[in-house]
Parts: sequence; structure tokens; C-alpha cells
Amino acid sequence: MRSHTEYLSFNTRKHRAYVHITPQVETIVRNSGVRDGIVLVSAMHITAGVYVNDDESGLIADIDDWLEYLAPFRNHYQHHKTGEDNADSHLKALLIHHQVILPITGGKLDLGTWQRVFYAEFDGQREKRVLVKVMGE
Amino acid sequence: MRSHTEYLSFNTRKHRAYVHITPQVETIVRNSGVRDGIVLVSAMHITAGVYVNDDESGLIADIDDWLEYLAPFRNHYQHHKTGEDNADSHLKALLIHHQVILPITGGKLDLGTWQRVFYAEFDGQREKRVLVKVMGE
Amino acid sequence: MRSHTEYLSFNTRKHRAYVHITPQVETIVRNSGVRDGIVLVSAMHITAGVYVNDDESGLIADIDDWLEYLAPFRNHYQHHKTGEDNADSHLKALLIHHQVILPITGGKLDLGTWQRVFYAEFDGQREKRVLVKVMGE
Repeated sequence: MRSHTEYLSFNTRKHRAYVHITPQVETIVRNSGVRDGIVLVSAMHITAGVYVNDDESGLIADIDDWLEYLAPFRNHYQHHKTGEDNADSHLKALLIHHQVILPITGGKLDLGTWQRVFYAEFDGQREKRVLVKVMGE
Repeated sequence: MRSHTEYLSFNTRKHRAYVHITPQVETIVRNSGVRDGIVLVSAMHITAGVYVNDDESGLIADIDDWLEYLAPFRNHYQHHKTGEDNADSHLKALLIHHQVILPITGGKLDLGTWQRVFYAEFDGQREKRVLVKVMGE
Repeated sequence: MRSHTEYLSFNTRKHRAYVHITPQVETIVRNSGVRDGIVLVSAMHITAGVYVNDDESGLIADIDDWLEYLAPFRNHYQHHKTGEDNADSHLKALLIHHQVILPITGGKLDLGTWQRVFYAEFDGQREKRVLVKVMGE
């Protein structure tokens, strides 16, 4: 079994941001030489997520509105007694989930026509990382 | 390491549907010859999910009501400016998640007593696919 | 490829509980001898979850409040016609998700500074199990 790990770095200009990372993941799969297997794409932070969906700006705005609706910024979270003000960022990350596994078949990401990988930043404007680990033959 | 990939196809009669697929996944695990490892079950669409829970019709109705409550159909999503009308299907898929990893031990799915795998269709009445990739020894 | 499986057991005193299990997972990774790979941590029940986030008691209380807000206990779920009263436990488990994959690099869990693994119990006061399967070289 072959294994290959790289890390992506992000420092978004906005507090919340959705970054399309399929091309970077494809490059790492190519670097790995793995022809059949999986690639784990996993945020290394507790206020960020990774998900698979459409690269369409209107939908991305809908996703952002929806996350704010279901996990809103508020002053009165208990987490804020520690001096933090980002409890909503944690809840948004839990909702969207912090990782995906992408299948690799014939040396390529085996995704459906419209599936794209996104890094979802919920507490940005600082250095953040995503681990990408390829495993297979 | 052994690897084995098959694809399941769905074309549900209803717009939303929950299809029990544990038997199909078990067959693919048997076909793979893998005795110890994992199987990735992953929707290849951005309006469909895969989840593990109970095969009980009342609970499935509750899950459907709950998804519609948290990610409702509405006319005024921004995604609909593209001519689409299925933004809620994307949000439901994000909420339920589009994939699971099932463990394989002793040649069998290593699931708890009540755990069953479901394909969750949120924009059906058309051809959809699920990738099933077995990896292990 | 090396594979190693262990099971964790829980019997929480409360109906809902959040148990920090990173040390137990680290021990299992050490037991496996795997230096590079992944570890699947997956609840074997349909009313329990596994997630990665902060080990901070205020945030854990926020998560619990938030899950109860989005997937509340109610009497009138359809699942309750079977005699059960825990439909909300199923919905909470679906929301938080029942499993994570943790990367292993250099013989250790390759997590970010604040990432910790939790078992989330939504219908406790009984014996429950989590599967931990390590795969790699």
C-alpha cells in the first residue's frame, strides 16, 4: 500500500469563505502515484469544514445563509465565557462536517459530474490548514 | 492491498426517497474477497446522500419531515436564478452527508445490531449513481 | 497493509453525554503498530455519534443546546408509534454524524492543535459500543 500526505494552507480575507480546492486535491493525487484508492481531505481546525457540492455562486450564497440561519452568530453562547466569540463557527463546522473521503479509480478522482470539493472557512483571516492523505496502490 | 469498485444505480419514482441498500453493499463486499478493511459508500451527486440508521418506516418519515423543516423547499433561493429549483435538495444532502465508511471484519460488514445503510434521494425521478469501493486484505 | 480493530464500550450515567476519547484512540493506534494510515472511529448504534471538536465544557454545553434546538425531543414523532420514545436521539445522531476518519502520520494521530475526538451519546444509560479500526503500514 502506498501512502502520500500533503497539507494545504489558507488565509481567507473574509471571516467566512468557501474555497474550491478540487484542482489542488487532483494535483496531490497525481503526485502520489496512486491509481486506485482513496484520498482523505480533512480540516485541521475546529472552526472549518470540508464538503462536496456544486461550484455555483448562488448556491454557495444559499449555503452560507442557511448555515447562519441554523447556527447563528450570537453573543450569549457559553463558550464565550472563555473570552472567545466564535461558538457559531464551531457549530457551522459540525453541521457541514470537517472531512470527506474521495475515491480514486484509474489514477483520477472518481467523482460525479457536478461534484467539487470545498474548504469552508468559518473563522478566517488567519492561517489554517487542511490535511490531504492519499492511500492505495 | 485489494481494491474493488462497483456502482449502484437508482431512478426513484418519487422526488424524495430513502432506499435501503445494505444487501447490495454486502454483495459487493462478498464480490471483493476482502476479509478485513473498509467500504466507502458515496453518492456521486450533489442532491443525494448516504447515511446509516434504522430501517423503520415511522423513523424514515420523521427524518424526511425533519429535513424538510431544516432545509425547506422555497422559491427564493439564489441558486434558482440559474433556472434550477432544487437548492433545498443540495442543503438536505449536505445535512445528511453524502457518504459513509463501513468497516469489514471477518469478511462481513461490522455494523451494530440496528445499523442499516440508506441511499437518500432528494431530487429523484432521474438516473443517479452511488460508488461502492472496498479496500483491504 | 496492516489492519487492527478494537471496540470501546460506554454506559453513560446521563441520557445525553459527550465523552472525550482521544486518549483511547491514541492507545489503539499505538497497539496497531501502524505508522502511516487512517483510523476509523465509528459508533455502532443509531442513537450515538462521533465527532471532532474542542474539549471545552462551555462549547460542549452549546453543542448540546444546539442539537436539542434543531432536533428536539417531542412526543409526536411517527417513530414513537412503535413504542419507542427516542426519535430525537436518531435525528441528533444524523446531524452530528456517527463516524470520523483520523489520519495517522509518523505513528501518531495527525490532528490540528485543538482537534479532539468525542463520543456523543444521545440515548444512554445502557451499554453502547464504538468500533476503532486502524489501517495502514
